[in-house]
Amino acid sequence: MTKAPAFPLNAWYVAAWDYEIKNELLARTVCNKKIVFFRKSDKSIAALEDACWHRLLPLSMGELKNDEITCRYHGLRFNGSGRCTHMPSQDQLNPSAQVRSYPTVERHRFVWVWPGDPALADPSLVPDLHWNQDPDWAGDGKTIFVKCDYRLVVDNLMDLTHETFVHASSIGNAAVAESPFVATHGDRFATVTRWMKDIDAPPFWRGQLGKPGNVDRWQIIRFEAPCTVAIDVGVAPTGTGAPEGDRSQGVNNFILNTITPSTDNTCMYFWANARNYRKDDQTLTTQLREGVSSIFREDEIVLERQQQAMEEHPDRIFYNLNIDAGSMWARRLIDQMIAKETRPKLQAAE
Amino acid sequence: MTKAPAFPLNAWYVAAWDYEIKNELLARTVCNKKIVFFRKSDKSIAALEDACWHRLLPLSMGELKNDEITCRYHGLRFNGSGRCTHMPSQDQLNPSAQVRSYPTVERHRFVWVWPGDPALADPSLVPDLHWNQDPDWAGDGKTIFVKCDYRLVVDNLMDLTHETFVHASSIGNAAVAESPFVATHGDRFATVTRWMKDIDAPPFWRGQLGKPGNVDRWQIIRFEAPCTVAIDVGVAPTGTGAPEGDRSQGVNNFILNTITPSTDNTCMYFWANARNYRKDDQTLTTQLREGVSSIFREDEIVLERQQQAMEEHPDRIFYNLNIDAGSMWARRLIDQMIAKETRPKLQAAE
Amino acid sequence: MTKAPAFPLNAWYVAAWDYEIKNELLARTVCNKKIVFFRKSDKSIAALEDACWHRLLPLSMGELKNDEITCRYHGLRFNGSGRCTHMPSQDQLNPSAQVRSYPTVERHRFVWVWPGDPALADPSLVPDLHWNQDPDWAGDGKTIFVKCDYRLVVDNLMDLTHETFVHASSIGNAAVAESPFVATHGDRFATVTRWMKDIDAPPFWRGQLGKPGNVDRWQIIRFEAPCTVAIDVGVAPTGTGAPEGDRSQGVNNFILNTITPSTDNTCMYFWANARNYRKDDQTLTTQLREGVSSIFREDEIVLERQQQAMEEHPDRIFYNLNIDAGSMWARRLIDQMIAKETRPKLQAAE
Repeated sequence: MTKAPAFPLNAWYVAAWDYEIKNELLARTVCNKKIVFFRKSDKSIAALEDACWHRLLPLSMGELKNDEITCRYHGLRFNGSGRCTHMPSQDQLNPSAQVRSYPTVERHRFVWVWPGDPALADPSLVPDLHWNQDPDWAGDGKTIFVKCDYRLVVDNLMDLTHETFVHASSIGNAAVAESPFVATHGDRFATVTRWMKDIDAPPFWRGQLGKPGNVDRWQIIRFEAPCTVAIDVGVAPTGTGAPEGDRSQGVNNFILNTITPSTDNTCMYFWANARNYRKDDQTLTTQLREGVSSIFREDEIVLERQQQAMEEHPDRIFYNLNIDAGSMWARRLIDQMIAKETRPKLQAAE
Repeated sequence: MTKAPAFPLNAWYVAAWDYEIKNELLARTVCNKKIVFFRKSDKSIAALEDACWHRLLPLSMGELKNDEITCRYHGLRFNGSGRCTHMPSQDQLNPSAQVRSYPTVERHRFVWVWPGDPALADPSLVPDLHWNQDPDWAGDGKTIFVKCDYRLVVDNLMDLTHETFVHASSIGNAAVAESPFVATHGDRFATVTRWMKDIDAPPFWRGQLGKPGNVDRWQIIRFEAPCTVAIDVGVAPTGTGAPEGDRSQGVNNFILNTITPSTDNTCMYFWANARNYRKDDQTLTTQLREGVSSIFREDEIVLERQQQAMEEHPDRIFYNLNIDAGSMWARRLIDQMIAKETRPKLQAAE
Repeated sequence: MTKAPAFPLNAWYVAAWDYEIKNELLARTVCNKKIVFFRKSDKSIAALEDACWHRLLPLSMGELKNDEITCRYHGLRFNGSGRCTHMPSQDQLNPSAQVRSYPTVERHRFVWVWPGDPALADPSLVPDLHWNQDPDWAGDGKTIFVKCDYRLVVDNLMDLTHETFVHASSIGNAAVAESPFVATHGDRFATVTRWMKDIDAPPFWRGQLGKPGNVDRWQIIRFEAPCTVAIDVGVAPTGTGAPEGDRSQGVNNFILNTITPSTDNTCMYFWANARNYRKDDQTLTTQLREGVSSIFREDEIVLERQQQAMEEHPDRIFYNLNIDAGSMWARRLIDQMIAKETRPKLQAAE
């Protein structure tokens, strides 16, 4: 019995921040596929298999000129569609001389790539991270290259109880672990909502709010299969109606996360912080980005060690606690996407 | 056909020196089992599987407080018996929430752990290294983490001929390789006895004895399965009756060794030197400890290179020389312990 | 189905430059065989399996004295034929106590070893690299330890089109990639001949020739199975008859290459440059050696990256271009040598 794939291929995955794709060659690995990216003169993006058709040398070692890559070994040239346009010492080009080209979309400040069947690459399926580019919101983010299965990062984000233990020195406090939550799901979405009402604000939130008195704190986690998690977090003074929908007296952040599998046990974790207050305060933007960055470094250590432990115990079955409701649903939605790809005939027969 | 295990599980193995187990978390690997150790407030020792029941994060990354470990990821708490005593966000604890606990015994300045069936963990089976704590003897030792199968260290100790070649610059001389020896064995023990009579003392022993004239030198190696080797070594002036049993005019050391398999090809080699003369001379204790330490470093290089060579020649069959009589018996006793564990039904039928 | 071997064993392979084999122990790996070399007092060369017959410790860790190696572990001694001549603590030597000895030949400034059946080790089969020691030629060379299958180096040398792209900053120019060539082959040889007539000389060749005006440039590659490539290169003023056979007005170099498989994916690449002009100019010898060394460093990067890419795409089938005619023939001749060894019975039946 072969192991089930770790990820669906028919999905949009972030390969890079938009600013990273320039008129030069960038190599990235998405879902075990090595891809070379570059921005063409017309600003559109090329994403090609990063291995020359002839002898496999990575095209990313080659030279980009006039929107074509010249392979560094024997000088074969490929255009942005992957078609070979020149071979040394021969006039006739082999009709099969082509490297694979991948569909891309640029959206929400990210470049998304579709590693699966190009015919299914519908741009309307790009996950929603609009807060990252919405004029009503301001913020910034970074990328972490984590040595773990991308699903461990999803698990981590779907249960913020871990804040209490992993982030005890920053955003965590006992209230998070002690508060009840509600989990829901649809066919591509899963949510976990936790309200901590009438509590003393943790230091970070007290600073953002800038007002005394108890607060109502919320964490609304929204997972979109297979690997995007937008987390709506904030506090408002108790009694000003936040739980009922009026957040006007509070402060609100979105923690935007999308985790791209590079290989079965490594991933690229793209994240950003967006806020809807003091939007022109660049110092605050930097403070928040660097603050989140420090906190996520604590997660990275735990995630990489968890990956090692899982590899040491390959046959271990996991028990789910109450706090795992959100990640359990995320996993099921991922599994459904994978199953749909890997058992097409069985499903057709159903 | 699967490869035979490299070690029995139903045995006491040294996991640490007694002073190493404090009221803090220490991770060690014994017989491929990752174990976290700590000393409880009542001075007794806890030895738990080093992987949280929930998501496998090593408990040794967690926090120890009130004799309980809090997992660093989701905050599950485990007591010294491995029982989960707290879960975040839920009142009812899953009855199966438990990590494995291992029997331990503290003896001869070492902490011994039993990685096999706890029902069989009889403290009377702890190998004899009493010289390490006997008031009639004085000394000290160290630990070496060697990248080889623990049995290669046993082989090395069971044949001191190697002193002539590996330790040519210190304790080795031609007399060792040239002298005859006698090997005996029982069901858990094997011995190799070598007397070098009326010889010029090597420099080390001349210094310890502090007397001129030829000496009778002895090396009496005592193996206790599966991995403990106590070596009785010394010299006495020739003619004073040492070979007949009167060592009163000589000097005597015990080299105490116990080698714990960490994995199939790594081990922890705990050793000590004990002597019954000039017992209050702390400078001599230090000199002997550091002297043995230098000599064992020469063995370590040879042992690690031998391990690599064996991995490069997996199908090689070994020829035994006369000098291998002791290690051959040690290997047989180890194999018998392993066979007893791995073929219980066949044996029951016999 | 097991993978076909990567190399024939019944062949002469360079293990070292002649000056590297001295009266001390040198360990080298040839065709997955670890071998220890030393030069005996009579200047002849011993090549023994680098693993003691007793417990496999590399003999290269031992001590060489009176043309015998004493093993560093238990002191077994082996003479230059691999026969054990001494064992500790026993008078009778086990008659099987012997390590394998390999045939060697010293020729063309190299030490060649035969890793296969010694009965077939005919010195007349040593590949021709006589220019490396011929008084009519002068030059020098080096060794590169490359992390790739030796056949990738052969491929590289059989198609000099790559000069245009890999060595664009030194010897490469567009003329090479644009010029036609002729490929021939025999049962142990394959050649690729390329004449670039009436061209502007590239800077390197202009400097060697020291004359103005257009030149005829030649590259005549001669492969001798399984892994020796002698390349005859040079330029002569156009109109002086070089294409017709009169090179008297030109300058000529031989690039001598022989690539010894160490393991399936590593090799030792021995190369030298030889010229037939300004032979006493030691400065020029050094300049040429260092110049070629810089150029080959560019190849090394490409070759190691190609090896990685091939391991990432184990099932990839390669397409051949026109430029691959030479390497295609080299591969076929290698494959024939391997097939002859691995299917002896089938061939006998044919």
